[in-house]
Amino acid sequence: MVCSTEILCVGTELLIGKTLNTNAHWLAKRITSLGGEVTRITVVRDDVGEIASSVEEAMHRKPRFLFTVGGLGPTFDDKTLEGVAKALRCKLKVVDEALKSVEEKYQMHVREGLVEKAELTPPRVKMAKLPELAEPLFNPVGTAPGVILKHDTTTVVALPGVPSEMIAIFEGPVASVLKQAAGNMTFFEASINVTGVMESEMAPIIDRVMQDNPYVYIKSHPKGEEGISKIEFHLSTTSENPSAARKHLSKAFVQLSDTVVKKGGKIKPVRTEI
Amino acid sequence: MVCSTEILCVGTELLIGKTLNTNAHWLAKRITSLGGEVTRITVVRDDVGEIASSVEEAMHRKPRFLFTVGGLGPTFDDKTLEGVAKALRCKLKVVDEALKSVEEKYQMHVREGLVEKAELTPPRVKMAKLPELAEPLFNPVGTAPGVILKHDTTTVVALPGVPSEMIAIFEGPVASVLKQAAGNMTFFEASINVTGVMESEMAPIIDRVMQDNPYVYIKSHPKGEEGISKIEFHLSTTSENPSAARKHLSKAFVQLSDTVVKKGGKIKPVRTEI
Repeated sequence: MVCSTEILCVGTELLIGKTLNTNAHWLAKRITSLGGEVTRITVVRDDVGEIASSVEEAMHRKPRFLFTVGGLGPTFDDKTLEGVAKALRCKLKVVDEALKSVEEKYQMHVREGLVEKAELTPPRVKMAKLPELAEPLFNPVGTAPGVILKHDTTTVVALPGVPSEMIAIFEGPVASVLKQAAGNMTFFEASINVTGVMESEMAPIIDRVMQDNPYVYIKSHPKGEEGISKIEFHLSTTSENPSAARKHLSKAFVQLSDTVVKKGGKIKPVRTEI
Repeated sequence: MVCSTEILCVGTELLIGKTLNTNAHWLAKRITSLGGEVTRITVVRDDVGEIASSVEEAMHRKPRFLFTVGGLGPTFDDKTLEGVAKALRCKLKVVDEALKSVEEKYQMHVREGLVEKAELTPPRVKMAKLPELAEPLFNPVGTAPGVILKHDTTTVVALPGVPSEMIAIFEGPVASVLKQAAGNMTFFEASINVTGVMESEMAPIIDRVMQDNPYVYIKSHPKGEEGISKIEFHLSTTSENPSAARKHLSKAFVQLSDTVVKKGGKIKPVRTEI
């Protein structure tokens, strides 16, 4: 059972190259480790039309999960939920539970002396306006709650863009939902770091090892340095059966390593999480 | 004249969270600095169908440029050009100039003692198979040439995924083509780092400053720390008129800074490239 997952990052700062997209990297790694398969990452600017059209496009591909990241805060440029609602043709409405959570945060900030009043101004109420049928996800770090909703066969999860908030909400209620959907699928990987062989020489060998080991995906990553041919071979497999997966990966690992040595290459194993 | 640009990164390693997408970050920053506007970044796995459908989708949005990154090498998983050809409904064919360039690289590698023979094996020839109408872009660092082609009103540029190769080809023949298309558009930015005000308090103020300064885009980035409210306000504008742009940015900068101070906030300016 493949648990396909798309990630949609919203933020003009990512498109002008101001911010490195470490959020997508963290999420992709974490979703993969939970047995999910990230099938696409999309980045759009803070624009309702762009968010809505990219959500619609994702929905046509029917992923099991769609994660949006960013754009949940109180300012005018936080437009993710408006875009999601537009794509799903539903309205935004203030959700009592979310509003209560936002108000409690500001009451805490009053006690901390960060703000004078906890009054629910329009920018603060905005953070509690969720698409119909959505439920808020408590944000233990920041103010804006996350959002979860089901649409057809897709679970849409909206996470804030502040990394600590995104991680806290994901690790809270979301990870277990995803893990359950992924069933017993587990991702296994191993790397072989090699010098002294060239990628073009290895190409037919990789083909051969993959033919002999149909469950294992092998990708070569040239790590070009002047005058040295250095390649990382990354082997991976996703399986519901850990012992079979380890066996498949080990077999391919040994076959590939042996061939590299026969070709005159040198091996420096660094990541063998078999 | 807006020079809209999309970036399509191809690589399963990006979707499993193995590799942080520094290539997209570098390209987005560089394209922005040349006056282009990056409108979307998409990441797909090494799959001809996925590459082809994402290229088709991009083509429907009619960007001035579409950059693909990765998937130009000699191995089975290097499928970008096959995907591009499928999307554009054209064939791949060996281009003499590209083949000559690949062969010369291997002749050099023979002299360096990296390989025994420079013979043009199928994986090596593969790197010279380009979509019809495409031209190769010389790769001064690695072996696989980049690719440039025009399709309708879009210029498609395929760059390798090894960062040093991507940068070398971009800075070689590509940057000037993009700069020319962007005309005199230049991107200007400035940041104000603030403590002691909350984002929700600043929301209506940002709205006001943007209303008063219609050419300036202001985005707030909360830099959450326990018990401290820390926000970066990022101001940017793109204009063909540098002196007007600087004036617009300065005016918004001063107005926003003054208001922050009136609200009791403290300012630590760090990036004032006005």
